[in-house]
Amino acid sequence: MAYENRALNDSMLNIPSEPRGAFTGSNQFILNEDAKKSTRDQLRAIGPWCRQKAKNIFRKKTLYKRLPFLSWLPRYSGADAVGDLVAGITVGLTVIPQALAYAGIAGLPAAYGLYGSFMGCFVYIFLGSHKDVPMGPTAIASLLTLQASKGVWQRSVLLGFLTGLIEILMGILGLGFLLDFVSGPVNSGFTSAVALVILSSQVKDVLGISASGNTFIQMWSSIFEHIQDTRLWDTVLGILCIIVLMLMRKITSIKIGPENDGDKTTVQKIVNKLLWLIGTSRNAILVVICGGIGACLHSTGQQYLKLIGDIPPGLPAFQPPPFSIPAVTNGTEIIQEEESFSEMVSQLGSGLIVVPLIALLENMAICKVFSEGKPIDASQELLAIGTANVVNSFVQGYPGNGALSRGAVSHASGSRTPMGSLYTGVLVILALLFFTPYFYFIPRAALAAIIIAAVVFMVEVRVIKPMWRSKKSDLLPGLATFVACLALPLEFGILVGIGINVVFILYHSARPKISIELCATTGVNTKYLMITPDRCLIFPSTEYVRNLVNKQGIKSQTPVVIDCSHIYGADYTAATVIETLVRDFDSRGQKILFYNLKPSVVHVFEGVDNHILVYYDFDALERVINEK
Amino acid sequence: MAYENRALNDSMLNIPSEPRGAFTGSNQFILNEDAKKSTRDQLRAIGPWCRQKAKNIFRKKTLYKRLPFLSWLPRYSGADAVGDLVAGITVGLTVIPQALAYAGIAGLPAAYGLYGSFMGCFVYIFLGSHKDVPMGPTAIASLLTLQASKGVWQRSVLLGFLTGLIEILMGILGLGFLLDFVSGPVNSGFTSAVALVILSSQVKDVLGISASGNTFIQMWSSIFEHIQDTRLWDTVLGILCIIVLMLMRKITSIKIGPENDGDKTTVQKIVNKLLWLIGTSRNAILVVICGGIGACLHSTGQQYLKLIGDIPPGLPAFQPPPFSIPAVTNGTEIIQEEESFSEMVSQLGSGLIVVPLIALLENMAICKVFSEGKPIDASQELLAIGTANVVNSFVQGYPGNGALSRGAVSHASGSRTPMGSLYTGVLVILALLFFTPYFYFIPRAALAAIIIAAVVFMVEVRVIKPMWRSKKSDLLPGLATFVACLALPLEFGILVGIGINVVFILYHSARPKISIELCATTGVNTKYLMITPDRCLIFPSTEYVRNLVNKQGIKSQTPVVIDCSHIYGADYTAATVIETLVRDFDSRGQKILFYNLKPSVVHVFEGVDNHILVYYDFDALERVINEK
Repeated sequence: MAYENRALNDSMLNIPSEPRGAFTGSNQFILNEDAKKSTRDQLRAIGPWCRQKAKNIFRKKTLYKRLPFLSWLPRYSGADAVGDLVAGITVGLTVIPQALAYAGIAGLPAAYGLYGSFMGCFVYIFLGSHKDVPMGPTAIASLLTLQASKGVWQRSVLLGFLTGLIEILMGILGLGFLLDFVSGPVNSGFTSAVALVILSSQVKDVLGISASGNTFIQMWSSIFEHIQDTRLWDTVLGILCIIVLMLMRKITSIKIGPENDGDKTTVQKIVNKLLWLIGTSRNAILVVICGGIGACLHSTGQQYLKLIGDIPPGLPAFQPPPFSIPAVTNGTEIIQEEESFSEMVSQLGSGLIVVPLIALLENMAICKVFSEGKPIDASQELLAIGTANVVNSFVQGYPGNGALSRGAVSHASGSRTPMGSLYTGVLVILALLFFTPYFYFIPRAALAAIIIAAVVFMVEVRVIKPMWRSKKSDLLPGLATFVACLALPLEFGILVGIGINVVFILYHSARPKISIELCATTGVNTKYLMITPDRCLIFPSTEYVRNLVNKQGIKSQTPVVIDCSHIYGADYTAATVIETLVRDFDSRGQKILFYNLKPSVVHVFEGVDNHILVYYDFDALERVINEK
Repeated sequence: MAYENRALNDSMLNIPSEPRGAFTGSNQFILNEDAKKSTRDQLRAIGPWCRQKAKNIFRKKTLYKRLPFLSWLPRYSGADAVGDLVAGITVGLTVIPQALAYAGIAGLPAAYGLYGSFMGCFVYIFLGSHKDVPMGPTAIASLLTLQASKGVWQRSVLLGFLTGLIEILMGILGLGFLLDFVSGPVNSGFTSAVALVILSSQVKDVLGISASGNTFIQMWSSIFEHIQDTRLWDTVLGILCIIVLMLMRKITSIKIGPENDGDKTTVQKIVNKLLWLIGTSRNAILVVICGGIGACLHSTGQQYLKLIGDIPPGLPAFQPPPFSIPAVTNGTEIIQEEESFSEMVSQLGSGLIVVPLIALLENMAICKVFSEGKPIDASQELLAIGTANVVNSFVQGYPGNGALSRGAVSHASGSRTPMGSLYTGVLVILALLFFTPYFYFIPRAALAAIIIAAVVFMVEVRVIKPMWRSKKSDLLPGLATFVACLALPLEFGILVGIGINVVFILYHSARPKISIELCATTGVNTKYLMITPDRCLIFPSTEYVRNLVNKQGIKSQTPVVIDCSHIYGADYTAATVIETLVRDFDSRGQKILFYNLKPSVVHVFEGVDNHILVYYDFDALERVINEK
């Protein structure tokens, strides 16, 4: 290696004592890097590192990280209790109608929605790191459960159990980073498509017809097949409910009195709070009213409306999740064949991977929105929702996680700690104990209306405009995900989007931007070419860079300087190609000099017996260029 | 947008007139970027762009690029003719024994090797851009042909035809860039594994036994099954041939007389040239001698050695490649069933993708090694070898391309232009016309020895050391490819390696290095945190950056400056996350300032209604930090 590191040593001594000037930024950054440790040192460090890790597991800090309630419970105040009580009950009023409705999306009897809505809440209090994550069934998780377990309750509950285990495992292995590879546009495309699929799945209940199908296209073709069976009263009630819900949603944002909160009278404040509460509890209010209508019409003896029907009263049995399905016989005929554990697992198939990942995606979305800058620990969230799902599966709950809609209600109701979930859970238990007889009369169309009025706002049309203004090429993965999720099963749809994004990253790493400038040395005025690649040199881009530098070099016939200020890394392939490049220039008798190359990259280039000339001092560089 | 662009405007006016100082590099690079065109301008530009492209196709420059012989043929001199003649004949002496041997690798009668070795040479003269690419069967292509077409000649020839078409298509679509994603380590691992597989496939011929198998493991287990059938004379001859070839290979590098070429006498020069020629033609010499031995032993009537047997005399018929296979009956029994075109294609399967890609990989390797810095046009090479393969398939040749071994011989024999291929092709034709009766007596063991002595040097043990010194993590994709190619079919093996490399790139884009420095302003000495990410902000890294900046910001409680000198790009996800980050800081009442952010990235951030404070002037930045 023949590089001038005198300048390097000088700079390292001088710069820290100098005042920080406007242009030292990038340079200092390059020079301040850690000295590389030798391999032997690295190997020797493994022992202490393992000991340290083992010690960490039992340290107080780790304990507080893994059991977040230890941080807030000792400081729990009266104000916290009031805030959490109000938030917990408000969320509870949202959760109960949602739970009944989402069970329908999952193709299960309404009771299963409630079964999955209380144990998880209790678990989350102890393990959850975020105050606004009310555990329970969500629209997306319900749809994925339907796709994986085809509406068989045993499979759905087993899916909850296995999903929980996989989430815990992912948490332990720290796989939360996988979410980083779902970009904003893909996420928006996926969510929007899911919303449309869920909406389509509810249209049949509004119309009172039976239709089936897994994808958007299948659902609509099935709806049009059965459109002649449309039932009048279901349709009228469904559409009315949607309109009422939309109007009530508007009520939340109505504020009477003066704009400034301080100027309002107490009455105005109470009215505002009441309006907000009515708007927020719109689902519960609607369910109660429609239940009344359902009961009245039912008492006439005529079946005007399809009702959700019997819900077994009381809490579900606490028992292990079903690891096999017994054969069901209808007297002599076999309605459902026996299914062993392995058959159930193979039926669930890719759902076992997709459900945990999407659950984490949805859950983290809430955490990110309401975190207020506090870093979120994805591993801890995985452990929390994983354990909650495992426990849920013992009370016949199907997979769930935090939902953005409930999170928003919790946040807006002034929640203070995860303790709010306690009251939500208790409310669900009370509902199961005392209200199940009344749930019988809730019309299906009303529940479908609740879902439709909620998911329609999940279609993220609003992101298109900023995306167009910000970076047009990002529309492609977003739109592709959207279309693919409508046409294909959801897991393939999201994979299409991620695939396109990965291709973008690969292209990006393969084609660096390179700026080329014809310069002249100070004083002597010798012409030279300054070539500045804007990023690191790794294998997909190296041949491209070599071709370009050679082409420009042959064209200009001057010495070539590669400004490496932005090259923060390189690999073996780059090292070999740079060696060839240097030989190319040598064979033409042309000078090629490297300026400001990070010592760690020099080390990589050195590995292949590369003889490159590196300078860190601009004057020294110019002197060499001036030499004939 | 509230960024101070006064400094930006000043700098743009001033810097170009200033002498280029040591620290202006990165800054100037950032400020000099092109103004972004509006979308409407871009759309408007499509028309002229298309017209220009259409015009370009018929321009002289494009014609010269697509028909490279137009450049060199008019300037063809006597010296060129002599150089090419010598090189062409030397290469021919290598090609003929290679062709006979490689046909064995492909599981075809020896004649097919010769059939694929002359038409392609003639085509390459006109279309090829490189002087050292003698078209013909290669070891790797032969092995891939065997794996795809299982030794059925009709399928092999059809594979040649289709491979050619796909190569031409890839050339037209400019897909040559795909090769950039095969890194050096993966390439080395693949080549080494292929060499071992080929070597293993030839062991059976050296031992004179019959064995089969597709992968390394299958081959060796089959060899050990049949090891008791080992034939004495074949084994002796095979091992002797390998030793002789290794020794003769050494002869090429023997130089007698003084070291300096100028000091040598004419005799010394001639002896040196002769030694080199003998060493280079070692395969041809060995084949002639072994053929003699084979003929002698054959005349005794005893079958001491397995010979390659009848080769039909004369040139192959010029006819379209077989698009179906007729049924072959042995009197009453059907030996081979009829196969339609679609059945043949489905038999070839993934080979139709793998063979063209690997052919290009091998071909480009030669071009890169011997290009001497001239840029290589991958599209043109694809067109050349594609057309050559299509034409070859009309004379019953199977897929081929340039081989490194022949390329090296050509280069060392002093080739001047692609015209050398003419003499190589003529020599093969002469061999077919006049020497086929003599080929009958060539022992199989001798051909196997030729292959083994050649491929053993393809096992790239020598790259391990520089890779270890240069970048240890690059050993992983290399070794993984090597092991996977031995254990699995080759196409899966190379995919494993590429997959690992892609994961590296993705990880790399997800976890930027971020340097953090506690600084103080000049004079007033207000503390602030300078955070410098080392690369662009795209979606896999944005949440990580946000978490880290928030964490450091909360810890330090000082204003935070993000030094964006190295951020050359961003996407929509980054823009939304930066917006959240700015809101995080606002909610804490903490200052966050952006320094030296490229205007194009500012544009991306602006798209999502982001209110960020950007400074390009260090003094202005410090003034804002000093404000309370």
